[in-house]
Amino acid sequence: MSRYWSRTIRNITPYVPGEQPKDRKYIKLNTNENPYPPSPRALEAIRNACGETLRLYPDPVGDELRQTIAEYCGLSGKNVFLGNGSDELLAFSFSAFFEPAGKPILFADVTYSFYTVYAAFFNVDYRLIPVDQALNVPEDGYSRDNGGIIIANPNAPTGRGFSLETIEAILKRNENSVVIVDEAYVDFGGQSSVPLVPDYPNLLVIKTLSKSHSLAGLRVGYALAHDDLIEGLTRVKDSFNSYTVDRLALAGAREAIRDETYFQETRSKIIQTRERVSARLMEMGFTVIPSQANFIFTASNRCHGSVLFQRLREQNILVRYFDNPKTDAFIRVTIGTDEEMDHFLEVIETITGA
Amino acid sequence: MSRYWSRTIRNITPYVPGEQPKDRKYIKLNTNENPYPPSPRALEAIRNACGETLRLYPDPVGDELRQTIAEYCGLSGKNVFLGNGSDELLAFSFSAFFEPAGKPILFADVTYSFYTVYAAFFNVDYRLIPVDQALNVPEDGYSRDNGGIIIANPNAPTGRGFSLETIEAILKRNENSVVIVDEAYVDFGGQSSVPLVPDYPNLLVIKTLSKSHSLAGLRVGYALAHDDLIEGLTRVKDSFNSYTVDRLALAGAREAIRDETYFQETRSKIIQTRERVSARLMEMGFTVIPSQANFIFTASNRCHGSVLFQRLREQNILVRYFDNPKTDAFIRVTIGTDEEMDHFLEVIETITGA
Repeated sequence: MSRYWSRTIRNITPYVPGEQPKDRKYIKLNTNENPYPPSPRALEAIRNACGETLRLYPDPVGDELRQTIAEYCGLSGKNVFLGNGSDELLAFSFSAFFEPAGKPILFADVTYSFYTVYAAFFNVDYRLIPVDQALNVPEDGYSRDNGGIIIANPNAPTGRGFSLETIEAILKRNENSVVIVDEAYVDFGGQSSVPLVPDYPNLLVIKTLSKSHSLAGLRVGYALAHDDLIEGLTRVKDSFNSYTVDRLALAGAREAIRDETYFQETRSKIIQTRERVSARLMEMGFTVIPSQANFIFTASNRCHGSVLFQRLREQNILVRYFDNPKTDAFIRVTIGTDEEMDHFLEVIETITGA
Repeated sequence: MSRYWSRTIRNITPYVPGEQPKDRKYIKLNTNENPYPPSPRALEAIRNACGETLRLYPDPVGDELRQTIAEYCGLSGKNVFLGNGSDELLAFSFSAFFEPAGKPILFADVTYSFYTVYAAFFNVDYRLIPVDQALNVPEDGYSRDNGGIIIANPNAPTGRGFSLETIEAILKRNENSVVIVDEAYVDFGGQSSVPLVPDYPNLLVIKTLSKSHSLAGLRVGYALAHDDLIEGLTRVKDSFNSYTVDRLALAGAREAIRDETYFQETRSKIIQTRERVSARLMEMGFTVIPSQANFIFTASNRCHGSVLFQRLREQNILVRYFDNPKTDAFIRVTIGTDEEMDHFLEVIETITGA
């Protein structure tokens, strides 16, 4: 604690990102990165953008990339907002749409742990919706009066998702609140709410290229909504940092989105691997939450989550463990390549004696 | 105005960045970009980083780049914090070190116009220090009680700078406040406060690679300070966006800083061009504020700033004009290549009949 710190930062508990070890000995199944490289076309576009023009600021609104995304999603460019990863979009959204010290916003008690950090940072009150025994979020949790809603769909770290009908019902019941649907993992089997954007002025969908487009290292996310919500986000950006997405990111993201064939191939492979690994774990007596994401949330009946986490780490396999009463039996395992997951399964067999 | 907007964004007037035209017909002397391309070594480093590893998150604290910067500045890595451009660092600093609704912070009434935007966004009160007739900031303006100080050194849009002794005197007089010295332009002839960092726990120096390293399109800035201030910035980052600087930016920035020869060559050329253009403008009867930056702030005795701005634009030359009583006689002209500036001078002669 420094005497120079503002109250804001004295009173917060910052987010702790998953470990990014420099040592390449680890099999990294801990931060939901894609095991396959980015689209070769995206890499080529970045190399082409890497030249003299880097001396110039990027387009502050990224019109070309917005247009590409709009066409891909069947929307207009003015319905698209770009960010330096989806975390920046979430931060901007908390500031733009949730009232400090106002009505509490709602989100699940088991979900992306950054939401509580944003709430503290922006001084936004919140109420947690308790998940049930099976780690489902009860839909009627979103029925009480609120100042906003945020839903990870599919949810993290469980991988469970809501149907389009459920999201639509929540939107209808909450016409006075902005409902943020965080679709970081939706491309791996969830139902996207993007088709609802034209009909619901209170819907903000947030997506990222970090996971399904193998571009975590490039930092690009986007938000989709009615234009007044997009304008709200722009007001925050232009009060914070006018140029958040750099020229290389704009170029690479554009081509990654255009390379639909590559995207379909890699996400299909990940889904297939996930299903195979889930089935094998269940054979071994593990509980596996049905996942719509590029990770599985799984628990052994012989070995506590913290022990599994530690034993895997000793074998150079990094997974994620969340130390709270509803989740501490589990580990979250990112889906790697088939080879990585075969090795993971072998090590798991040894650890649990299954 | 949307009913979904928070009070925060209803009540702010966002920053308006300088125009980034898509049409390449313009000579762009409006956003203080460097006319010379980035270091070829930096571009090569980016190309080398553009591969499979982009699927992985960047190092959230950027240790390798921090180390390079620390060595360059004669500090330790823990005294360095990285940001997505210096604007992000300024935003984080307002949140980390200035108290919402607390004692007012101090900055000049003619300075980087983003400071008032940050103050409004973070609800930080401020008092403006009036510059004198010659657009100097009076040093004793920083003597009153305050909740923080921010100084652009050299100042924008005037190009006037404080000496190291003046900065040190301000630091000594304000031991209870964080003093931010924004050195976006310092490499073009100002005196950097970096040597004061070890001795002053209340000093935060902010630098950027956008200008003197020709990397505005890459988005990298850094802050230098005692480790508890760096920790304060880290707390904001990890409450906002854990990974703000992407892998390509980390790689390119590192090599740009290492390529000292290229840096010295390009900044010297810009300084020479600035001196030549300033002399010629003065011959033509213009007022030219002595500049330590990569721009000049100049006024004609025959032609108002707004008229000059408009007439130059009609001739496809973009400069910046600031419409307020103390600055509206002037235009701010970024130093371009010699060829661009010769053309600028010719057009100026035609416009003013000088």
